[in-house]
Amino acid sequence: MNILITAGGTKEKIDDVRYIANHSTGKLGAAMAEAFAKDAENSIVYLHGTGAIVPRRPNVFPIEIFSTEDLKNQLENQLNNKQFTAVIHSMAVSDYTVSNTFSESDFLSAFSEKIPITQETSQLLWTKDELLAALEKQFEAMAVQEKNKISSNFDHLLIRLEKNPKIIQKIKLLQPETILVGFKLLVDTSETNLVSVARNLLEKNNCDYVLANDLTTIKGDKHHGILVGSDQSTQIAETKQEIAEIIVNTIKDKSKTRENK
Amino acid sequence: MNILITAGGTKEKIDDVRYIANHSTGKLGAAMAEAFAKDAENSIVYLHGTGAIVPRRPNVFPIEIFSTEDLKNQLENQLNNKQFTAVIHSMAVSDYTVSNTFSESDFLSAFSEKIPITQETSQLLWTKDELLAALEKQFEAMAVQEKNKISSNFDHLLIRLEKNPKIIQKIKLLQPETILVGFKLLVDTSETNLVSVARNLLEKNNCDYVLANDLTTIKGDKHHGILVGSDQSTQIAETKQEIAEIIVNTIKDKSKTRENK
Repeated sequence: MNILITAGGTKEKIDDVRYIANHSTGKLGAAMAEAFAKDAENSIVYLHGTGAIVPRRPNVFPIEIFSTEDLKNQLENQLNNKQFTAVIHSMAVSDYTVSNTFSESDFLSAFSEKIPITQETSQLLWTKDELLAALEKQFEAMAVQEKNKISSNFDHLLIRLEKNPKIIQKIKLLQPETILVGFKLLVDTSETNLVSVARNLLEKNNCDYVLANDLTTIKGDKHHGILVGSDQSTQIAETKQEIAEIIVNTIKDKSKTRENK
Repeated sequence: MNILITAGGTKEKIDDVRYIANHSTGKLGAAMAEAFAKDAENSIVYLHGTGAIVPRRPNVFPIEIFSTEDLKNQLENQLNNKQFTAVIHSMAVSDYTVSNTFSESDFLSAFSEKIPITQETSQLLWTKDELLAALEKQFEAMAVQEKNKISSNFDHLLIRLEKNPKIIQKIKLLQPETILVGFKLLVDTSETNLVSVARNLLEKNNCDYVLANDLTTIKGDKHHGILVGSDQSTQIAETKQEIAEIIVNTIKDKSKTRENK
């Protein structure tokens, strides 16, 4: 089988020296790649973030990416050129990218210049709605202060982020036949909520399976996860190895069932 | 000699899964630790950021830290308990820490509630100064939306940062006798400017030496740097090894001169 695994986390550049990252190590992605790699007939493309763990196996082909934009490009490139039995998208993708960074004082002084006042009473000529619209516009307008490295001399800096497009939603558009496994990490939630969030994502992101897990139940190799299927199935695992095994077995079974149809 | 080296970069938490980091690898710090470690009589405390390179030598004692706050605590702890011949502060310390994170829409709607208008004309009752003061107050007031993991559902998120205290300025207060080497990374600047920025920092941060370098002249092991001394000396190096050597030799000479006084 051709398998595409994404692992680790994406990073978003703030300036030439700073970036936003997440704690994802790629351990779970690596465990899954190892599990698939045991069968020499499998070929695994391993798209991973910088700094993530990379399994060294002859049938694992690593591709390193930095940002969400890089991930999108490499993923499209792979999906356009090769048919994958399954895409296992375990990478922690940044929800937001940096749109601009500016100091609070520069924001206030740039905004100050646009405030219309009467000559006589110094009262504002705006209505409430005009004021709010002008504020929103000012956030959009703020450009980066220094392009290379942001000065360290401001009291308060604002990093403005904008939502990234959901990359997982593009996968089935490019390969409707692939078995898509999505991942969702929540923090300190109930088992019922994990399953319910997973069920919502199955539909929203057009996944065949979603592995839901909770940061507070991950420690070292212990890793509680629930694999929820679009066929209403649920499977529970307690370690990264168990998660890897149930995913490998589920993909194997599902692809056989499809072949027999 | 007892030597304290800081290396790699600090990270600043945004929420349980996200943080701000910088590209510092700790390679230069590791090269300096290795150079000092060659002399078995030297003992090197190596304070490093997570993910940084750590030299494995019997006389190198690594301590891992995550945030600027951690660095401050560990540094104070070391300086309060042991006399160091030199402190070589090569760590890329975050200039800013995260004060709060909030969505632009929540900022605007919270602010909206505080705008005073007349019943009749809907005109604003603020003066320009009152408006600006209210805006500044609103930035301060915005609390984190979710404590654990920020929702991915906002169009625009604002991360508000506040300036970190300059840790390097505390070193000589705790150990006036130590030889302090500071580092300054600039981006795409001239040789003259490197030296002039280094001279300013010597005084501002109470350093004996400042190693000034430029991101655009660092590639692989190539690493152009100028060591500027409070004695008006300048020494130039072109690789990480050369930087390590001139620093080791300079510290050795300076500590001998002091002993002979």
